[in-house]
Amino acid sequence: MGVKKKLKELAEWVDGTVVGDGEIEISGVAAIEEARVGEITFIANSKYLPKLGGTHASAVIVSKEVTQADRPLLCVTNPYLAFAKILTLFSHKPYQPKGIDSNAWISPTVKLGKDLTLYPFVYIGDRCSIEDRVTLYPGVYVGEGSSIGEDSILYSNVSIYSGTVIGKRVILHSGVVVGSDGFGYVKEGKKNVKIPQVGSVEIEDDVEIGANTTIDRAALGKTIIQRGVKIDNLVQVAHNVAIGEDSIIVAQVGISGSTKIGSNVTLAGQVGVVGHIEIGDNVMVGAQAGVTRDLAADQGYVGSPALPHREFLRAITVFPKLPEMRKTLIEIEKRLKKIEETLSSRGKEK
Amino acid sequence: MGVKKKLKELAEWVDGTVVGDGEIEISGVAAIEEARVGEITFIANSKYLPKLGGTHASAVIVSKEVTQADRPLLCVTNPYLAFAKILTLFSHKPYQPKGIDSNAWISPTVKLGKDLTLYPFVYIGDRCSIEDRVTLYPGVYVGEGSSIGEDSILYSNVSIYSGTVIGKRVILHSGVVVGSDGFGYVKEGKKNVKIPQVGSVEIEDDVEIGANTTIDRAALGKTIIQRGVKIDNLVQVAHNVAIGEDSIIVAQVGISGSTKIGSNVTLAGQVGVVGHIEIGDNVMVGAQAGVTRDLAADQGYVGSPALPHREFLRAITVFPKLPEMRKTLIEIEKRLKKIEETLSSRGKEK
Amino acid sequence: MGVKKKLKELAEWVDGTVVGDGEIEISGVAAIEEARVGEITFIANSKYLPKLGGTHASAVIVSKEVTQADRPLLCVTNPYLAFAKILTLFSHKPYQPKGIDSNAWISPTVKLGKDLTLYPFVYIGDRCSIEDRVTLYPGVYVGEGSSIGEDSILYSNVSIYSGTVIGKRVILHSGVVVGSDGFGYVKEGKKNVKIPQVGSVEIEDDVEIGANTTIDRAALGKTIIQRGVKIDNLVQVAHNVAIGEDSIIVAQVGISGSTKIGSNVTLAGQVGVVGHIEIGDNVMVGAQAGVTRDLAADQGYVGSPALPHREFLRAITVFPKLPEMRKTLIEIEKRLKKIEETLSSRGKEK
Repeated sequence: MGVKKKLKELAEWVDGTVVGDGEIEISGVAAIEEARVGEITFIANSKYLPKLGGTHASAVIVSKEVTQADRPLLCVTNPYLAFAKILTLFSHKPYQPKGIDSNAWISPTVKLGKDLTLYPFVYIGDRCSIEDRVTLYPGVYVGEGSSIGEDSILYSNVSIYSGTVIGKRVILHSGVVVGSDGFGYVKEGKKNVKIPQVGSVEIEDDVEIGANTTIDRAALGKTIIQRGVKIDNLVQVAHNVAIGEDSIIVAQVGISGSTKIGSNVTLAGQVGVVGHIEIGDNVMVGAQAGVTRDLAADQGYVGSPALPHREFLRAITVFPKLPEMRKTLIEIEKRLKKIEETLSSRGKEK
Repeated sequence: MGVKKKLKELAEWVDGTVVGDGEIEISGVAAIEEARVGEITFIANSKYLPKLGGTHASAVIVSKEVTQADRPLLCVTNPYLAFAKILTLFSHKPYQPKGIDSNAWISPTVKLGKDLTLYPFVYIGDRCSIEDRVTLYPGVYVGEGSSIGEDSILYSNVSIYSGTVIGKRVILHSGVVVGSDGFGYVKEGKKNVKIPQVGSVEIEDDVEIGANTTIDRAALGKTIIQRGVKIDNLVQVAHNVAIGEDSIIVAQVGISGSTKIGSNVTLAGQVGVVGHIEIGDNVMVGAQAGVTRDLAADQGYVGSPALPHREFLRAITVFPKLPEMRKTLIEIEKRLKKIEETLSSRGKEK
Repeated sequence: MGVKKKLKELAEWVDGTVVGDGEIEISGVAAIEEARVGEITFIANSKYLPKLGGTHASAVIVSKEVTQADRPLLCVTNPYLAFAKILTLFSHKPYQPKGIDSNAWISPTVKLGKDLTLYPFVYIGDRCSIEDRVTLYPGVYVGEGSSIGEDSILYSNVSIYSGTVIGKRVILHSGVVVGSDGFGYVKEGKKNVKIPQVGSVEIEDDVEIGANTTIDRAALGKTIIQRGVKIDNLVQVAHNVAIGEDSIIVAQVGISGSTKIGSNVTLAGQVGVVGHIEIGDNVMVGAQAGVTRDLAADQGYVGSPALPHREFLRAITVFPKLPEMRKTLIEIEKRLKKIEETLSSRGKEK
């Protein structure tokens, strides 16, 4: 990587304080087990503090509660965040445009910005707009009338259907499909009549979308992914969905048509969400949950169908005890019957 | 869009009746919130009727029960179907062949139909047959010996393995893979020995398949997707599966090997189906269900493992009450014990 | 297929014994319903033995328990394994290199082995190493500094990010993405700060990966898929995951970050596994299970959250009886109350 920074410089960079020698030079970042002399590592969770003894790292990013160790410390409020920022510092490579390869196919009506990197086998359709410093890897297809904002990166084999709007600093990983037809049919007898999907997709600034994720175009109107949303691999976003700012959508989630997701929401892996509902801001939905109705803001949910987090946990804990409960129930009925008979006979005795 | 139609003409087109002025001209279709003057909108569900007041639409498609409003109505049996047909009327663009781009790679042994649209970076292997008016977008790969029927459209980066048969008017969205090897191994000790997948895939007429869906070739024989089937994004169809006519397979469904799905079946999102079973005609399976055995025709199922719809609903409603039930059970045991002791002591008293 | 073998030769090939005429010639393999005269079929499960009467196959692979039938038998310990080996014998085509197409884009700094097959529209970045007899289908992208071992096959539209190491005899099906950024962010307020993903992916020898599966690169260090692992379609493998030798990962499974899967493990379809846990060797996890903590070796698990197999089965069997149990519970309470009242009044009577 080449870059070297003094520990005290890193502390300034992440708004932390040094315990020990701030003059030592740091040349990289590594996990605690792999770190070598000259590198900095981090401990995000205090339960890993005992591992400190075994690392070869020359310094360690820790939370402010830690005040001493056998080597220099960089103490911060959020060690994980500081790690991310220092790793960015060491790994960042300045953008160098590679130009437009002669094997890229670009319509003469495309509006091209400056300092582009267009690899071989890129296709850009009529009347597209490709802004400054955009990178399109091999096999990227951009359908007619689409626009891609400054500094965006589309990795190999990404497909952008016509009329899609993509913001600035957007990252689309390989195999992402944006703007494919929404899944809309209406039955006429048994036959499925296709509803033309004449809407579009808009992806705002600073969105990142994982490999092989699919975002369908709207039937009418727009499917919209708002600023700062991060979507993992193999996620399905159906037509007319809206995802609010800074939300996190983990791998293999499926969001059905016309559903509105608030801002700063987290949907964990393999969650399914039905269509035409609303999920409030700051909601967290646990892995594999099935969301079947509107979810109120600022709460956690899990289960299929989804329940408030605590309610689900309480119920699922009892689930393995079901056979025992059933057995108890049968025994109780017997005992009860016996008592009733006893009482009945004693009643008659009198 | 350019097209203009009188309301009475639209009524004829969808077999409906006009309430109000049938002479007004309609220039497009839009959702109720976005419709502008000159456009028609629709209300599929009568609960949205109150929204009629706020729309700018010049006319509204409604069901036959609605008989008056403050603007012209188009009354039909199925408003959603009429909407689809009218939208098709306004959005349909006649096919115009773009010819064969010089950057497409086509084996000299390919049989090419008329009026094709073959984009740059298309690859077509030996002895394929591409029928009239087929459109292949950039990055489409068609392996040797495959055939694609009239008017079919394969969007960018679709992969068709060798020996695949694709019918007429088929639409395959970007990233679809057809004919990849089925997942077949047999253990020899701990080692996985690959079972050669020497079968093929057949996709019949009028099938549409969503982005990044995968359809594996058969081990022996055929994987078959019958006429009119519609498959959503990110669906997995394993080797030797058969899906019957007009069935609907929603996003992220997985169907395991050799399973037979009847006709007019609906599998909702994220459903999983085990291998070697049969699902009867007209079955509906709810989202995230896990189908573990044959399902009888004409019924609804949900849950994992799947139960008849009503049975599952009744049980899942009780699920959150499990902790309370368990508590009650423990209390009952105590009370019972107390009674038994009382009876026992009174028995002795006598 | 052209090849013909005597039945006794096949018996030698798979270490079996012939019952009946070992001299008959076999020209191919087919399923029991489709087999024609001259072909061999197989019965892996004795419950299908009655089907023997209806097949046209000239010979049948069966288990050693079967000792007679109306046609020649090939008796083996594992009929399915013998079928796989005989099918391989008949379907195997010797590799014939097609050379390097002039429409492939290959950096001058790539190290190329012998006897390659590089199709049109392949892209290979700087300083890659492509070993002998590798096949890259159209639309394959190989990022800089990656290496691909002998005899590996990458089907159309596979994307390999920079710095990936791929072993020998590896098969990657269409649309596979290897080395995309792991899904790593840390919140700074509500904003998601990206953690640079500077690690890599290593895929060892004899691995096969299904269509549109995604394998993310590590944040730091390596994501590793060990020798002989077989992964189905549409699977998500997150950053820093390790999958042990000979494990089987079925379609649509999702494995979260830093989780370690042992060797010879089976994860059935649509299983989800949380991050930072360990699954022991030889574990089997049932379809749609949700694994939320470490799993001990050599056992079966199912359910979400996953339970030991038998425990889950017992509980899920009771699940549909919940409404009835609840009703019983309410009735019992009433009867109990009545008894308590009776006892109380009789107590007073005295």
